Formats: sequence, structure tokens, C-alpha cells
Amino acid sequence: MLQFKKTLLGGIAPLLLSIALASPVIASDAHHHAHGKDHNFGAFNKDNVLLTPRGYREWVFVGAPVTPNELNDGKAAFPEFHNVYIDPTSWNHWKKTGEFRDGTVIVKELVSVGSKSAPSGNGYFAGEFNGIAAMVKDSKRFPNRPGNWAFFGFESYEAKEGAIQADEACAACHKDNAAQDMVFTQYYPVLRAAKPKK
Amino acid sequence: MLQFKKTLLGGIAPLLLSIALASPVIASDAHHHAHGKDHNFGAFNKDNVLLTPRGYREWVFVGAPVTPNELNDGKAAFPEFHNVYIDPTSWNHWKKTGEFRDGTVIVKELVSVGSKSAPSGNGYFAGEFNGIAAMVKDSKRFPNRPGNWAFFGFESYEAKEGAIQADEACAACHKDNAAQDMVFTQYYPVLRAAKPKK
Repeated sequence: MLQFKKTLLGGIAPLLLSIALASPVIASDAHHHAHGKDHNFGAFNKDNVLLTPRGYREWVFVGAPVTPNELNDGKAAFPEFHNVYIDPTSWNHWKKTGEFRDGTVIVKELVSVGSKSAPSGNGYFAGEFNGIAAMVKDSKRFPNRPGNWAFFGFESYEAKEGAIQADEACAACHKDNAAQDMVFTQYYPVLRAAKPKK
Repeated sequence: MLQFKKTLLGGIAPLLLSIALASPVIASDAHHHAHGKDHNFGAFNKDNVLLTPRGYREWVFVGAPVTPNELNDGKAAFPEFHNVYIDPTSWNHWKKTGEFRDGTVIVKELVSVGSKSAPSGNGYFAGEFNGIAAMVKDSKRFPNRPGNWAFFGFESYEAKEGAIQADEACAACHKDNAAQDMVFTQYYPVLRAAKPKK
């Protein structure tokens, strides 16, 4: 866990965020999709390390659990909202099959708690972006990882690529506790509702 | 507030959800967009009442505040996560201009707190869908509403159309407290980060 946090959080330059997110990912993917050509959203270096995802805030939102410090004795593993997204091609596959395809990219963006009170009541309201992590399913690139999922942390939003995480850092917990194929679908009604009824 | 809740929550048939959400909104919109034709996502009856939005879980996610009952003396106005989405055409406009265009549709989906403890820690995790509300900006349809925004509640996911809300029910609070043009951008880093720097 410590290792994970260490690689995940790093120097962040919010000024670059809007640039990083400016690429019209929905438009280009859906355009391809409309012509019958799905594509993979994960891009890798020659060592199968995931390049830093871009444009994921335009992917399909999955869920946003929040685990604040004060509910975890001041030592939350992830003291933020976790905004979780799935890439559009894999979302389309999920809607058809209820399975995560080879090539699925799921991004978790960490967002600080910015406010605990608002006109709508007391609770938790998002503040600022704190970093991202990602998991990728790929049986060819990651044949020996549990479920063929590899987990990546990112030093910063400006990092060129991620750092692959040891199985103990992420995969072990996902494998033991996630409801379907290493993904915590039990906390993601968006995924459950879109899953085909068999 | 009571009136709002009354029209918002009604009989819900989760079985119909996947059908309601099956339309490929991202694909069709972005396809149009790729050919330079944006379109409006709001559809209305002849009295300018918003038809129940569909496919909004494939729009652009904005934020998911949570205001649980136990943090509000058991009487939270909205004892759920509020998953908020903006339609893709208006998102593209926002990225270019930092303004909400005529035709903007923002949907708020209410999602119950399903769990308060998970392997990642104690906190709030989504459960089941509880209903939707929406706000639409349209200077021609709603010339006399504050900021030209109209607010709609929906009896259920199966309702054909919404019920327009009195200004006191929603608009007054948004007008007094929201950071930009009746929208609570102060709690939505996704919108802030995508806004052009002037």
C-alpha cells in the first residue's frame, strides 16, 4: 500500500490539466465505433508499461466512493474520492457481454475532499485532483498477472508512463474482494445496471 | 424542498434501467460532432416540459457529492450520492468557452449509500439508483426563469416526462449559492479543470 501511494502521488501541475484533457477522446472513439472500428485506449511502451492515460474524464463514469481520513483514524489508505472511469470501447463490450474485454482500461482518479458542508447538507464534496491510477486487462501483455490485469501508478499527471505495481500492492486485494473479474462491481451500480440479463 | 422530493422519488423498476440506458448516446452524438453537427440532448413536450433523459450515464461525469443521513441529523435533504452529468454537446461548448450554452442539460442521479466499509477503508460506497432530476438552460423556452434555467423532477425512471419545479424549490438555492450560472462548479473540479484559462 505504501509503495502504491508513493508512486501514485507526486508533483502535480494543475495548469497542465486542461491541456492533458483537451483531446476529444469521446468524439474520436465514437466516430470510429460508428464505423464499426473499436479501438484500444491503452497505449504502452516497449516494456508493456502503460503510458499515462489522457482524456479519461470523457470516458464512461463508473462510480465515486469516498474514504475520508476522519473515518479511518486519520490514516485512510486513499483519503479522497476515487472517480472511476472505463474506456468507451470496453464499456460498449460490457453492455453487450457483461464481461471485461482484453484491452479494458479502468482509470481511478483521486480527488481531495474539498468541502464537508454545502447548501444541500453535510457530507463530502470534491476539491482538487490528486493523481491517477489505472488497471488494464490484457492476456497477451500480462499473461502471468492475476486475471491478466496489470495495475499502474503514476508519479504525476505529467509523467510519460506509469509504474507497474507488485501483485501484493493492488491485485491481491482486488482478487480477494472484488465481485467480478478483479473489479469492485459491488460498488458500481452503473456497471451492474448496464450488464445484460442472462 | 419537500415538494421536490415528492416529485423526484416514486416507483422504480430497476429491471427497466438497462433498457432505458441502452441507447448509444455517446456514439451518436460524437458521430454527429465529428461531422460538425452538435445537437441538443434535451427533448420537450409542447408545453416545454423536459422528457425523461435517457442515456445520460454515457454523458460527461461532473461530480458525485454525498450527503448521508447520519451527517444530517437523520434528515438529509438528499441522503444519497448525487451523480451529476452534463450532455456532450454542452461539454464541448464548455471546454471552448467556459460557459453553459443554451440547450445545456445537466442530470443529477441519486444513488443510495450501499456500503460504509470496504477493503479500501471506511467511507461511502454507492448502492442502488434512486431517481433523477435535471436542469436545462434555454433562453427561448424559459425566458422568465432565473438564468434561463428550468428544473425538473421525475416521478420514476419510466415517467415519460418531468415535472417543472417552482423557483423556490430549486432555482432559489442554486442562484444564491452556486459559483457560476446556477451550477455548483465549486464542487466540480472536472468542470473547473476543463474551463479555458482567459
